[in-house]
Amino acid sequence: MTSSYVITGAAVATMHPETGDYGLIPDAAIVIEGPEIAWVGAEADLPAEHASLPRVSHPGRLITPALIDCHTHLVYGGNRAREFEMRLNGASYEEVARAGGGIVSTVSATRAASEADLLAAALPRVDALIAQGVATIEVKSGYGLDTETELKMLRTARAIAKARPIHVVTSFLGAHATPAGEDPDSYIDNTCLPTLDAAHGEGLVDAVDGFCEGIAFDTAQMTRVFERARALGLPVKLHAEQLSHIGGTKLAADYGALSVDHIEYATAEDAAALAKSGTVAVLLPGAFYTIHETQAPPVQALRDHGVPIAVATDWNPGSSPLGSLLLAMNMACTLFRLTPAEALAGTTRNAARALGLTDRGVIAPGMRADLAIWDVSDPAELSYGIGINPLQSRIFGGAP
Amino acid sequence: MTSSYVITGAAVATMHPETGDYGLIPDAAIVIEGPEIAWVGAEADLPAEHASLPRVSHPGRLITPALIDCHTHLVYGGNRAREFEMRLNGASYEEVARAGGGIVSTVSATRAASEADLLAAALPRVDALIAQGVATIEVKSGYGLDTETELKMLRTARAIAKARPIHVVTSFLGAHATPAGEDPDSYIDNTCLPTLDAAHGEGLVDAVDGFCEGIAFDTAQMTRVFERARALGLPVKLHAEQLSHIGGTKLAADYGALSVDHIEYATAEDAAALAKSGTVAVLLPGAFYTIHETQAPPVQALRDHGVPIAVATDWNPGSSPLGSLLLAMNMACTLFRLTPAEALAGTTRNAARALGLTDRGVIAPGMRADLAIWDVSDPAELSYGIGINPLQSRIFGGAP
Ligand SMILES: [Zn+2]
Ligand SMILES: [Zn+2]
Repeated sequence: MTSSYVITGAAVATMHPETGDYGLIPDAAIVIEGPEIAWVGAEADLPAEHASLPRVSHPGRLITPALIDCHTHLVYGGNRAREFEMRLNGASYEEVARAGGGIVSTVSATRAASEADLLAAALPRVDALIAQGVATIEVKSGYGLDTETELKMLRTARAIAKARPIHVVTSFLGAHATPAGEDPDSYIDNTCLPTLDAAHGEGLVDAVDGFCEGIAFDTAQMTRVFERARALGLPVKLHAEQLSHIGGTKLAADYGALSVDHIEYATAEDAAALAKSGTVAVLLPGAFYTIHETQAPPVQALRDHGVPIAVATDWNPGSSPLGSLLLAMNMACTLFRLTPAEALAGTTRNAARALGLTDRGVIAPGMRADLAIWDVSDPAELSYGIGINPLQSRIFGGAP
Repeated sequence: MTSSYVITGAAVATMHPETGDYGLIPDAAIVIEGPEIAWVGAEADLPAEHASLPRVSHPGRLITPALIDCHTHLVYGGNRAREFEMRLNGASYEEVARAGGGIVSTVSATRAASEADLLAAALPRVDALIAQGVATIEVKSGYGLDTETELKMLRTARAIAKARPIHVVTSFLGAHATPAGEDPDSYIDNTCLPTLDAAHGEGLVDAVDGFCEGIAFDTAQMTRVFERARALGLPVKLHAEQLSHIGGTKLAADYGALSVDHIEYATAEDAAALAKSGTVAVLLPGAFYTIHETQAPPVQALRDHGVPIAVATDWNPGSSPLGSLLLAMNMACTLFRLTPAEALAGTTRNAARALGLTDRGVIAPGMRADLAIWDVSDPAELSYGIGINPLQSRIFGGAP
């Protein structure tokens, strides 16, 4: 394969924002130059300057931007299958906790694991996403809750990108939970903020996240974290209004957050604030499904206010052991009534935006040549299938 | 590989019925002789007569019976992604129907397809199940609703077993729907029953199924089908009480059915009847999820009466485009509150029973050596993961 070539024969869903839909080009050509897209359009319109390039034909296939999973916690130790089983056998939350279950068990296992252990556990998860056409993932810390382990998780996230052909964007999530026996305020001030400084000092932090919820941190505590992020010049995002409405969405919008995530309990007023701040609403149907939530996020209000909607796996061992971004798309359609076009925008164009990335998620000149080639004839099939993976191949930075 | 060997190093979930759970043997050995299991137990107890056989070690892995998907409609033409998308874009059922949607579209596409077309479309679905450790599937007719197409579907189902290392059990589902413009009674008498005779004459029918529902066939109509099945010496099963309670479960029990399937609206009295007839309750959470059903099947009543519970994909293009039996297990736990042990029994031991098969679904001497080898340490992980496939390899009739 030379560094420049033309892909022909397939339909292309460019996901260009101005099309308002898939931006579908039926008999398309995509010119790849090195790691970038140089041209896309109908093959019949291929400019003469590209006509002599080598061609690769994908007859009858569909090409989309490679997928982006913009919210994961996929670096962790242990798993929570035992707790899942205990609950279904009728154990109370107290019994599960006494048996060492809950986030505490993941924190313990993650603290006990070496960076090599964490990487070895994470790579099969990453490989599963790559096998579904994913080329960019976000990975959060937050199962350390101490400086050493938070740094270890973020180093592991960086190591993933060296071990596999995938981009990794990190979020520092020190404000995920308060360690057992500690006071939330002193944890924020004495552990979380100094750890953020240290992680940033090592270049490990692309964004700063938190869990703003009655059972986690309130808006005053999150404000201290966001102030530190601002001082360090780091963008913020937030787990907000997942279980109740306590004002996280509004706070995140005030800080110009890249995204607010979950937001089942957000209001139309919150949607207006998100629209104003240009913040992406990241929907996480895997957690909604797993915890038997009944309040769906305010999708129509988000649409009405023009808030960009993304969809992610939230892959984590507790509330969303969901290893398929395609399944997250199906769940977003089935459980939240997104359209298949919204679901695909949510794992391409809008997922890129939720990560502050402007060079991917759309098939257009100048964008990274991260592409997914599918054995489907209609882009709606990607969301329609449940637990089905029609990926034929993936192109990463121009390379098959 | 010789025809006799020993598998060691792994934990084995035998799924033996008397254990009431997984029948887990931590450091197990399985002796394979040709296509069968000759011995299973703790490696420390391996009888001297097998001690010199070649060994294959799977350290740290879990071995279960290969999975069985006991309810699928995976031979069909076309797909219904467009209809899925229309609905999410707000189209009414009438608009979808006017655009050619609904089961009618699958019937048209299946009638138009050749047997080779149907096989080519089905094989990737079968391959996806094989890749999840499935070794036996059931496949139904029912998208023809005319003699020629029903036979073509069943021949395709038989052809799958020649094209891939998998067992296929067929069900004749002529009583799936009434063709547009026809009268249900005359369809049953003039098309369905003669087609059953013809299909049986070709050796294409392992069981006779029907869709007993207000929108399909009533118990009187199903009785005529079951009488014909009885006359032909064929076992029966039934789609029953999925959307309402009209007595299909009781009818099926009266005919000693192998299984009743869906049964969201079945009662405790129905459960008692199933227990008496030894009929398996096949739960299909993929359809429940897709059609936004809120009434869950009477799981506790089934347990109380000792009714064997199976779990299947119901893979079909309309109400359950679900291509993962592992995901069906997770959905059965999450949506129906089955325990992970019940879910695994539901895709092994009880799924075999739902198909009338007594030689598989349990790891025991004399059973077929159809095994699944998983990269998990705990069998609960198989149901806990969502859209995750931890299969390491599959053994089919003793052959890796
Ligand atoms: Zn999260
Ligand atoms: Zn069915």
